Amino acid sequence: MTELVELEKRGVIAHLTLNAPHSLNALSDAMLAALKARFEALAKDRSVKVVVLKGAGKAFCAGHDLKEMQAGRAGEDGGRAYFADLFTRCAEVMQMIPALPQPVIAEVHGIATAAGCQLVASCDLAVAAEGTRFGVNGVNIGLFCSTPMVALSRVVPRKVAFEMLTTGAFIDAARAREVGLINRVVAPGALESATADLAETLAKKLGAAVALGKRSFYDQAEMGLAAAYAHAGAVMVENMLLRDTAEGVQAFIEKRPPDWA
Amino acid sequence: MTELVELEKRGVIAHLTLNAPHSLNALSDAMLAALKARFEALAKDRSVKVVVLKGAGKAFCAGHDLKEMQAGRAGEDGGRAYFADLFTRCAEVMQMIPALPQPVIAEVHGIATAAGCQLVASCDLAVAAEGTRFGVNGVNIGLFCSTPMVALSRVVPRKVAFEMLTTGAFIDAARAREVGLINRVVAPGALESATADLAETLAKKLGAAVALGKRSFYDQAEMGLAAAYAHAGAVMVENMLLRDTAEGVQAFIEKRPPDWA
Amino acid sequence: MTELVELEKRGVIAHLTLNAPHSLNALSDAMLAALKARFEALAKDRSVKVVVLKGAGKAFCAGHDLKEMQAGRAGEDGGRAYFADLFTRCAEVMQMIPALPQPVIAEVHGIATAAGCQLVASCDLAVAAEGTRFGVNGVNIGLFCSTPMVALSRVVPRKVAFEMLTTGAFIDAARAREVGLINRVVAPGALESATADLAETLAKKLGAAVALGKRSFYDQAEMGLAAAYAHAGAVMVENMLLRDTAEGVQAFIEKRPPDWA
Repeated sequence: MTELVELEKRGVIAHLTLNAPHSLNALSDAMLAALKARFEALAKDRSVKVVVLKGAGKAFCAGHDLKEMQAGRAGEDGGRAYFADLFTRCAEVMQMIPALPQPVIAEVHGIATAAGCQLVASCDLAVAAEGTRFGVNGVNIGLFCSTPMVALSRVVPRKVAFEMLTTGAFIDAARAREVGLINRVVAPGALESATADLAETLAKKLGAAVALGKRSFYDQAEMGLAAAYAHAGAVMVENMLLRDTAEGVQAFIEKRPPDWA
Repeated sequence: MTELVELEKRGVIAHLTLNAPHSLNALSDAMLAALKARFEALAKDRSVKVVVLKGAGKAFCAGHDLKEMQAGRAGEDGGRAYFADLFTRCAEVMQMIPALPQPVIAEVHGIATAAGCQLVASCDLAVAAEGTRFGVNGVNIGLFCSTPMVALSRVVPRKVAFEMLTTGAFIDAARAREVGLINRVVAPGALESATADLAETLAKKLGAAVALGKRSFYDQAEMGLAAAYAHAGAVMVENMLLRDTAEGVQAFIEKRPPDWA
Repeated sequence: MTELVELEKRGVIAHLTLNAPHSLNALSDAMLAALKARFEALAKDRSVKVVVLKGAGKAFCAGHDLKEMQAGRAGEDGGRAYFADLFTRCAEVMQMIPALPQPVIAEVHGIATAAGCQLVASCDLAVAAEGTRFGVNGVNIGLFCSTPMVALSRVVPRKVAFEMLTTGAFIDAARAREVGLINRVVAPGALESATADLAETLAKKLGAAVALGKRSFYDQAEMGLAAAYAHAGAVMVENMLLRDTAEGVQAFIEKRPPDWA
């Protein structure tokens, strides 16, 4: 089942590919379970320093599996329990991304809509091909993208998010970068290499420092200024006490490359 | 008195017009009371799906009524009780906008200053004519725009807000869009039609879904990530269980228009 | 010792110059102590209405003093107590900037890296020369910029901050303005005059109103909407009751300049 999300390791970089191209990589129950399993394994895999997440076929991800959702209505409760469980599982998977110790880069092409756009917003970084379209367009079929909104509204300005959510309109990759949803836009033929370049840049850093910093990044985002500084200061102390950080700082002073394992 | 804010319904779209052009639609006690009455009625009006807010005459709104405020100093307390009441009433009106079940679009021309700029920032969406100027310029007369700041600083980046508040300088419509204060800029002659187009786009959506989503949008904005997901997930369940959403999703699967009332 | 941070008063504008050009104005223990002393004195100095912060020599500030930090490892605890104290002192100095009653403008040239970039992010406003480079590049030597992140992530969009923190890459002044880290970019030869113009604009405002507004700006930023309005409304009342505000509003009504002391 986990082959719904293929894993390929290239050195210290793990490439995850959503692999249900016939459904535009819909986040079905099985796909969510496969993603969860992959993230759980990666969280413990010390050999992986960066994760790239992409989609097979024509699109990155078109959101939930609508046929499966409609089938969920068959229960006696009209689907209430199934939907509650579904959105809980989906939110859990989305929150595993900022919680992973490794940075996660979305490599986006085609379309990223609804929960697929949420996936992009949830990744730490995102690179997209020109021509990619982004939308939280559930509103067009009567289902406001309330959970995608949680991720989207934390990375783009408020009125931009509100417009996307209520018009259901697509934005293109250039606009997505402008508003902060993604980091880089490249020609479609350069998408893989540009994402690989970014991943390799991150992979050269000290993994323990990046893991400390990434966790602190999201933790302090929810705190007031004084609490955030107290938290981040404690993280800096732990970071300074890493053997490899002592070596990294010393190497910089001595103008030589660090001797990291 | 409520004619200080004119109401015109065009189908399911309610147009509110601040109608005190001689005072640049100043937010006098009477104007605030009229706005409050209009918002209270609209909140209960199921026939209205979108609200457009604009100003009669040369400007959208130039903020508080300064002569009335100065007259408020006549009390024994030098105006303390009057001012406390005024800012409470004003903040109440501003907070009614995100609390309305319908999206509210500001249609802005001329100038939007001080509490007038706050009104723009408080609306869910905003369209402005080229040439419109935006400012929180109370600081120029010794009155820092502290309450406008609450709305402004939630839609534009921090240093942009601080600069506007302390320099008292105007920004133009293009810059206002760039920083996130408004959504669209159009030629003055196209302002009404561009706003109408946006309003009609929103009016075609399922109102119950938009109302659920809008409330959730502002509620989750004040929560941490996990709480926001728990909240938004519950909203998604309610949304899925709407009869019209079941129909909307099914219609999409069957590639036909939804049969909505 | 305080000459590590030179103070020059030009009328009501205080110019602070980080003055350790040989170390690119590194934030050594002595430099942090000098900054703290300067900020403590300025907080009480009613004759100063605006503060400008700049760096002597080739750069604004290159962050912590790495040699001094390495020396801190000599203790029995490997430096733990020293580092904890260092980051506490540094965070304290950074938080004194938003806490000062006067607006603080960073005048930035050359480079602003790590805690130097944090200093720019912490200032209320920033003007930079073309050619200035900004980075939180501790990650390059194994020390994630967790404390600089606290300031940075509150002024730039989330994915922009994450990219800077994990790639360790520089951004230029134009990009720094685009993402909200600074307010203005000017030719190197115009840096001093452009900053002076901005400082003079602010210095002409009513200082008591600016002080009230500045404190409220940062206080309300950590509150939910309703609490923020309650807070800002109370600030507006105090502001209205200032004698000079009464005069400022009246002068505006009478279309004459205010008679401020």
